[in-house]
Amino acid sequence: VTKKLLVLPGDGIGPEIMHEVARVVAWMSRTRGIVFDISEDLVGGASLAVHGVPIRDEVIAAAKAADAVLFGSVGDPKWASAGFDRRPEIAILKLRQELGLFANLRPAKVFDALVDSSTLKPEVVAGLDIMIVRETVGGIYFGEPRGIETLPDGTKRGINTEVYTTAEIERVARVAFDLARQRGNRVCSVEKCNVMESGLLWKEVVTDLHAREYADVELSHMLADNCAMQMVRNPRQFDVIVTGNLFGDLLSDLASMLTGSLGMLPSATLGAVDAAGRRPALYEPIHGSAPDIAGKGIANPLAQILSFSMLLRYSFAMEAEAALIEKAVANVLASGLRTADIMSPGMAPVSTAVMGEAVVRELDKL
Amino acid sequence: VTKKLLVLPGDGIGPEIMHEVARVVAWMSRTRGIVFDISEDLVGGASLAVHGVPIRDEVIAAAKAADAVLFGSVGDPKWASAGFDRRPEIAILKLRQELGLFANLRPAKVFDALVDSSTLKPEVVAGLDIMIVRETVGGIYFGEPRGIETLPDGTKRGINTEVYTTAEIERVARVAFDLARQRGNRVCSVEKCNVMESGLLWKEVVTDLHAREYADVELSHMLADNCAMQMVRNPRQFDVIVTGNLFGDLLSDLASMLTGSLGMLPSATLGAVDAAGRRPALYEPIHGSAPDIAGKGIANPLAQILSFSMLLRYSFAMEAEAALIEKAVANVLASGLRTADIMSPGMAPVSTAVMGEAVVRELDKL
Ligand SMILES: CC(C)[C@H](C(=O)O)[C@@H](O)C(=O)O
Ligand SMILES: CC(C)[C@H](C(=O)O)[C@@H](O)C(=O)O
Repeated sequence: VTKKLLVLPGDGIGPEIMHEVARVVAWMSRTRGIVFDISEDLVGGASLAVHGVPIRDEVIAAAKAADAVLFGSVGDPKWASAGFDRRPEIAILKLRQELGLFANLRPAKVFDALVDSSTLKPEVVAGLDIMIVRETVGGIYFGEPRGIETLPDGTKRGINTEVYTTAEIERVARVAFDLARQRGNRVCSVEKCNVMESGLLWKEVVTDLHAREYADVELSHMLADNCAMQMVRNPRQFDVIVTGNLFGDLLSDLASMLTGSLGMLPSATLGAVDAAGRRPALYEPIHGSAPDIAGKGIANPLAQILSFSMLLRYSFAMEAEAALIEKAVANVLASGLRTADIMSPGMAPVSTAVMGEAVVRELDKL
Repeated sequence: VTKKLLVLPGDGIGPEIMHEVARVVAWMSRTRGIVFDISEDLVGGASLAVHGVPIRDEVIAAAKAADAVLFGSVGDPKWASAGFDRRPEIAILKLRQELGLFANLRPAKVFDALVDSSTLKPEVVAGLDIMIVRETVGGIYFGEPRGIETLPDGTKRGINTEVYTTAEIERVARVAFDLARQRGNRVCSVEKCNVMESGLLWKEVVTDLHAREYADVELSHMLADNCAMQMVRNPRQFDVIVTGNLFGDLLSDLASMLTGSLGMLPSATLGAVDAAGRRPALYEPIHGSAPDIAGKGIANPLAQILSFSMLLRYSFAMEAEAALIEKAVANVLASGLRTADIMSPGMAPVSTAVMGEAVVRELDKL
């Protein structure tokens, strides 16, 4: 069966690293006979420039019709002061909301060959492998009321609302528990139940669900401030972390940075399985659009390539093919190839294209 | 003139480390002729156990009447499931709110002698000296509406509200700019203006105030998720950081952990100067009540002692005396004395009391 992919390269380095993924996709078609039906469109600043909006309704519709979305990154300093409704970021926020992509899976993994890239001591991060499951369509990102109002004296008041319902918490917790069973079997649920009622409900719902359906998984609870500390103190204590949208935003970025190699980390954002058994899903590297190095051909394409590997695993259950890509990436690193962002002193960096080609060459050997 | 201090040791290790501060206070009275009028009371779990509430109105009143409050720490696992209204933490939240303590000053400093305690590489954190100014009486901690409601189908909905007004943002930003002028002259303002209107207002108000009154200070803006990353990537890029209550909670704990020695870090929380020139203020170590080691006489008293040093500096403008305590602490560390929490492999730990006595002995020599 044909697999429909929507490719959205976005801004900055998005297009040039997506170009390298195309080689891997082509390799899969050629050697495994997988038929991909690929369409591509503009999002973020690239869409604003051409269409005046960060994402068109047609693109949302195409994303809904696709089996999976492969996303680059959005964000462009050109639009920094363009107003709240014309932020490139709206593209990803709208995709999450319109497709109901409620569970963001963010692995923070230290690659053996790159253990020295971290600012943390190697003995603290070697072998690190955390999976953060972040809720992505609720919480303060989307809660109403929201906005800025002018007070009688002319000064202003900015408001946002954090809202979580039992159903929203349960479905994302389920994803975390299910993932834990395939890994270290431990889930740490993170909130601020000591100051926020929404966090208190979060903790209660996770605790209840655990007792009802996941008693075989080890569950712990941690306050978000403590979690930020523990990630620095002893990050390897974590297996799966589940948390809300805002805490997840900070904590998953923090966890990524512990690895020292943002350019290596992919992510998946999954929706609910529908009656026909289809599950909307979007895959993107965790790094941003990196406008400072865009167009120079020096960006690291591996996080985008590994996002495609996650796509094969989670959207098409092609575990063997997903693992093959991961193996190829690990081998390329082991052979000493480095883009500038993951280079140690004394190494010579390779270009985006050389790195992409090397992965395909490695795939040929496997 | 007599200086009225209210001492609130709180829970866990609070009382035993406060006992060491008493020696330093006594030293100041004896050698400098400073007359302290000290009263002491219960807060947190200690107050719940005796009075059934985490803090009594009399204690709030005494705090208002005092020139400064020296606070230990609150939190006790015994009360973990006692319900939202009977959390020990309410003591500190109420003190902040009732005294209008809106600006929490959280230095994250690496002591030369302790540079190896960090999980980060010494070359990344040596000389680190960040001052985080966290708003503490607004934002999602106190915003209304809040609570947990039951939906028609019996499931629940948890709500909290993030609110910031121009006035609230301005006053805390002023504290940050004023502090920056006495340090590295740089302020980084942190929010999530790309997803939250309250963050957008935050950024606008800080930008306007800067242009109007603080153009001599270097101002930058950073998204909270990026800030969490940058703290791990290159923490020394920061001088003063100003941010809201919730982001400040996570980011200041994160920054503290970068130093690897939580047991060393004090904090001050300041209110507004009133018509009579008085400014409510509370000083506390950033570490918690550490129930696991409470009562064993092994806790590190230095953060509490340094909190008293901050008290002398910010509440009584006794810069010389404040610096004296800091010098004594630095010398004690340089002499190799360590409590268990800051010990390197191969060192022998000293007790809470020995550390406290050593500071006083060092003061005698200075
Ligand atoms: C681009 C931005 C809106 C987004 C977020 O805050 O969720 C990003 O930081 C992320 O983590 O995917
Ligand atoms: C005790 C708790 C309510 C408090 C907070 O979240 O503000 C603490 O974490 C702090 O940072 O002072």
